[in-house]
Amino acid sequence: MAVAFHDVTAARARLAGVAVRTPLLQIPAANEAVGGILLIKFEGVQREGSFKFRGAYNRLVQLTAEERERGVVAWSSGNHAQGVASAARLLSTHATIVMPADAPQVKIQNTLRLGAKIVFYDRATESREQIARRLCADQGSVLVPSYDDPHIIAGQGTMGIEIAEQAYDQRCTIDQVLVPCGGGGLVAGNAIALQTLTPQARVYSVEPLEFDDTARSVALGSIQRNRPEARSICDALLTPEPGELTFPINRLLLAGTLAVSDDEVRAAMVFAFATLRLVVEPGGAVALAAALTGKVKTKGVTTVVVLSGSNPDPAMYCQILSNR
Amino acid sequence: MAVAFHDVTAARARLAGVAVRTPLLQIPAANEAVGGILLIKFEGVQREGSFKFRGAYNRLVQLTAEERERGVVAWSSGNHAQGVASAARLLSTHATIVMPADAPQVKIQNTLRLGAKIVFYDRATESREQIARRLCADQGSVLVPSYDDPHIIAGQGTMGIEIAEQAYDQRCTIDQVLVPCGGGGLVAGNAIALQTLTPQARVYSVEPLEFDDTARSVALGSIQRNRPEARSICDALLTPEPGELTFPINRLLLAGTLAVSDDEVRAAMVFAFATLRLVVEPGGAVALAAALTGKVKTKGVTTVVVLSGSNPDPAMYCQILSNR
Repeated sequence: MAVAFHDVTAARARLAGVAVRTPLLQIPAANEAVGGILLIKFEGVQREGSFKFRGAYNRLVQLTAEERERGVVAWSSGNHAQGVASAARLLSTHATIVMPADAPQVKIQNTLRLGAKIVFYDRATESREQIARRLCADQGSVLVPSYDDPHIIAGQGTMGIEIAEQAYDQRCTIDQVLVPCGGGGLVAGNAIALQTLTPQARVYSVEPLEFDDTARSVALGSIQRNRPEARSICDALLTPEPGELTFPINRLLLAGTLAVSDDEVRAAMVFAFATLRLVVEPGGAVALAAALTGKVKTKGVTTVVVLSGSNPDPAMYCQILSNR
Repeated sequence: MAVAFHDVTAARARLAGVAVRTPLLQIPAANEAVGGILLIKFEGVQREGSFKFRGAYNRLVQLTAEERERGVVAWSSGNHAQGVASAARLLSTHATIVMPADAPQVKIQNTLRLGAKIVFYDRATESREQIARRLCADQGSVLVPSYDDPHIIAGQGTMGIEIAEQAYDQRCTIDQVLVPCGGGGLVAGNAIALQTLTPQARVYSVEPLEFDDTARSVALGSIQRNRPEARSICDALLTPEPGELTFPINRLLLAGTLAVSDDEVRAAMVFAFATLRLVVEPGGAVALAAALTGKVKTKGVTTVVVLSGSNPDPAMYCQILSNR
């Protein structure tokens, strides 16, 4: 595997005092809803409101002085953009982000506020990868992938260390962990950390129904792409296929793969608002949706759900709240 | 004083394993916004989404077996109602709540869901106190006041113990604590706990501008009422005057009193949504509003703000988000 447990502990040392150690919350009404113990890892209070800062900072803090001068380039629909921009600001380097023109406005604004430069592209006609690689060639910048990079995966894995420690502090033995999955970096990192720290815990990826590339790839044993016409409200999870590095890790370590519909995601966002009193975006709510709809048995067991991102567009958010 | 520190520690022992030990969150973007360290005590993940469960359970768990059989009566616009209903359900007694007919629908529904009976009254023409006392006389029930009761104040004070412990765990020395104030039970309880545990911390009450009865009462040295025509969006803080028990405590222990406008509250709710990713209702946001608008100096010091309640009406909430 491209990433070992010691890479995750090294990332944790780099992130100490910089990233937020986000809370693992236990809320009685959530326990009642699933008929077991539900531990909620809330990344909404992470820097820039999603887990992405973890991996981005772990990559950027390892740039050489020359690389820092030339800056970094990333592509992202929003949360990785903000994570990279935030890490770049803290480390006094500059970031250029290639974003789809239809990215949520709130994510565009936050990325700009953090001092990054944005280059927009058209999802339908242009290749973000080509644009990013050209920028890197022109500026001599370092490309920061959103998931298929050992430093990124190790950074996301710091969440798994926190989950294991916090569950222990709460005298809970974890039976299963449900993690939102786009390219698979977060779930891979968590699986690596948890395999060592709490090996009885079964780790599941959770994807949008039409973007279940990791599920199909794991089932078939080779990388499978999503159909180009696939759609979901989970803008943070619309990756075309699993990564070259994340796929072998997830294939080896995941106990299973789950998928949820957009309507199940909407219901989970309303539950988060009304019962957990936490703000969560569609892509960040898929693991909660899986737990609430019984995609795995939650009765009588201890389940961790990761709320991975909390940057919803306010208008979309309110539309979902008002249709409940 | 009607409540001593040992009453608060006794309450804490009663609440252990029943109430949620809510998190004290430190979020980099919030620190930046105030130019100092901001520690956010988030009661949204408390049972029923506000601090009220603490006091209600501490009172109800001390009922005799006969009293439990005859049930309890309370009046409340919503959060105390839910706290009492929730404690009554856990302790297998029954609760009757006198609620204004114009209470937020979400609070009415939650109170009913918890198995309580509701008696509605008209704020303009009827006395909730008279109705409640009549119900108590008819049923032989125990009245559970929302703030002017030593067990209620001691229960709310358990939050202060948590704040002191959690700040210590985070290696923070608290300079000041801002607490939302209606009848003054929460701020009084916190002040009692913090006076003993972290006496250098200055405790401030925060009220809506037109409901600054505690501020005026403390300034003048006697209980002052709010004008009957006073209005605010902070439905949880619309008490007519400070309590007979809470006023002397707050007069003695508060370092100062603050007040915020409804517009400042709206801005704080938007900040909580977009930057903290936490749901908070108007009355629960006044302390955050005071910190964000510089009602006390926050630069270079450590400030605790209590987010005391998180049961906003969704339609009102979205209206506030969309006008930002």
